[in-house]
Amino acid sequence: MTILSGMRATGKLHIGNFVTLENWVEIQNKSDKNFFFVADWHALTSHYDTPEIIQPSTFDIIRHYVAVGLDPKKSVLFVQSAIKEHAELYLIFSMIASVSRLERIPTYKEQISNISTKDLTNLGFLGYPVLQAADILIYKGDRVPVGEDQIYHLEFTREIARKFNMKYKEIFPEPQPIISKVPKLPGTDGRKMSKSYGNVINIETNEKELKEKILPMMTDPARIRRTDPGNPEKCPVWDYHKAFTKSQDEKDWVWNGCTTAGIGCVDCKKLLIKNMKERLEPVWDKLASTSVEDAIEIAEDGNEKARKVASQTMQEVREALHLRW
Amino acid sequence: MTILSGMRATGKLHIGNFVTLENWVEIQNKSDKNFFFVADWHALTSHYDTPEIIQPSTFDIIRHYVAVGLDPKKSVLFVQSAIKEHAELYLIFSMIASVSRLERIPTYKEQISNISTKDLTNLGFLGYPVLQAADILIYKGDRVPVGEDQIYHLEFTREIARKFNMKYKEIFPEPQPIISKVPKLPGTDGRKMSKSYGNVINIETNEKELKEKILPMMTDPARIRRTDPGNPEKCPVWDYHKAFTKSQDEKDWVWNGCTTAGIGCVDCKKLLIKNMKERLEPVWDKLASTSVEDAIEIAEDGNEKARKVASQTMQEVREALHLRW
Ligand code: SF4
Ligand code: SF4
Repeated sequence: MTILSGMRATGKLHIGNFVTLENWVEIQNKSDKNFFFVADWHALTSHYDTPEIIQPSTFDIIRHYVAVGLDPKKSVLFVQSAIKEHAELYLIFSMIASVSRLERIPTYKEQISNISTKDLTNLGFLGYPVLQAADILIYKGDRVPVGEDQIYHLEFTREIARKFNMKYKEIFPEPQPIISKVPKLPGTDGRKMSKSYGNVINIETNEKELKEKILPMMTDPARIRRTDPGNPEKCPVWDYHKAFTKSQDEKDWVWNGCTTAGIGCVDCKKLLIKNMKERLEPVWDKLASTSVEDAIEIAEDGNEKARKVASQTMQEVREALHLRW
Repeated sequence: MTILSGMRATGKLHIGNFVTLENWVEIQNKSDKNFFFVADWHALTSHYDTPEIIQPSTFDIIRHYVAVGLDPKKSVLFVQSAIKEHAELYLIFSMIASVSRLERIPTYKEQISNISTKDLTNLGFLGYPVLQAADILIYKGDRVPVGEDQIYHLEFTREIARKFNMKYKEIFPEPQPIISKVPKLPGTDGRKMSKSYGNVINIETNEKELKEKILPMMTDPARIRRTDPGNPEKCPVWDYHKAFTKSQDEKDWVWNGCTTAGIGCVDCKKLLIKNMKERLEPVWDKLASTSVEDAIEIAEDGNEKARKVASQTMQEVREALHLRW
């Protein structure tokens, strides 16, 4: 079993990414072949106008990978753009990738029509799932931890694998998703977490900032007075508790206290801050002791390992296509 | 001045390619920086179902390059797929290449609607001009010998160069075409020269085959009897004379003889055969003495030189995009 996943280098990682990373760490600890990469070329599909943000973000993501618990001894941690073979396989896959099939991928249509602030009508954005297929298949990844929005892309990856295997040679697995059970965390205002809304909590923060962001957080709008009972299902604070409060007793205390007006929202949030701090503190420590230089070293080591596997696969691909060099 | 051009590895070269190659040789002899490559990845955009034809065709094209007079001492002769940097630059250019702009390229629309025997709706075919831009710009090619049908692609290459230079850093020239004055040769039946029509004369042939193909060639349809005067402008044999008969006296003899019914079509064709044989014989000899092994050696030498230039350019590109590796 080969695990593969990655994050796009488009900025600071937030606590939504944190729960994803914790999930990856769990998966890593049960598997012996793991690849986790920083998708910096993918970042370029949408951030081609501000490429200068990509490199700092790349190093930062490696720091976070390690800080949350991805272990360079157990996992190959590497940077996409360092492995040129991804580009070569992308080019080859683009020969068997249908344009109309790509246009029909639901996330493509959705993003093209939703995002008006960026011009996403570039070839790279259309070919995004093809590059993703190359990312996964070049390591013969067969289990891919993904968010729900990535399911369509992974389906496309399987199609490309199948098509290649049938046309040329049985080289690639048809990777299956590992769908995260971790709930998607909303922003502090209840909307989708997004830099542009200013409702994000970064992983790399501290207790003071945590308080400043959690205490004014939006709650169940129906709970206007302290004496009104609330409905946690309608409160983003509860989403955070589900991710950060592990003790069942504490969860019961929140649920019962909220629905009976037994506790106030401030009590509820203080418990959350305590639990978030507990979980994040070791990560803050690890981040503080992991420099950009450390990240570069880790990445260079991982790049070398990744390159070995990728170039082996490309050798097979070239032979299947009768390409000599 | 850097010259760059290439031919797709999709089969045997014909006498239409021969006049193009002669033109390249002339250009080579007046320039000190020349790159001529075999476009095997491009071949894959349309021949992804029969990749096995590409490698033999690749070696064959190198043999023809040399046989017609491209000189490995004056020109870098190389194979596209051996230089992985083309794929990397293709990927990067695809971030700034607009899909709708690509769809509007006249040759794209035309081919998609004309060619019903092949499915060309793959991403690679849409991205063809982007890969071509990478092929040219990675060597900072600024003069590109092209056929008329390639003018639109070169215009696109200039746009990409301009866009990249403006957005990131002034790295690329805006390459200008060298439009061949050589007339396009029709097939022996007067239609477009095409393998599927069976009207092609390959470069690698012999006198006997030449006679077998030229003597039954279609002529001016109005010249039914020997005594009917003909119109060379309506005769494909005349197109061949324009390409292969250098002596003005002989050309006058054909023109006057034809329009006054002074000569018969067989006389006219015999002169053509003599002149074609004269021009092609040294090429046949050189082809006979150039083995596939020789071609591989020449290509490997050229690949190395090309790689040096390409990797230098990519270094600049990565720096401009703040990519470390
Ligand atoms: S008590 Fe907690 S869960 Fe209930 S509304 Fe307030 S913050 Fe939300
Ligand atoms: S004489 Fe020559 S140019 Fe005239 S019709 Fe015959 S073949 Fe053609």
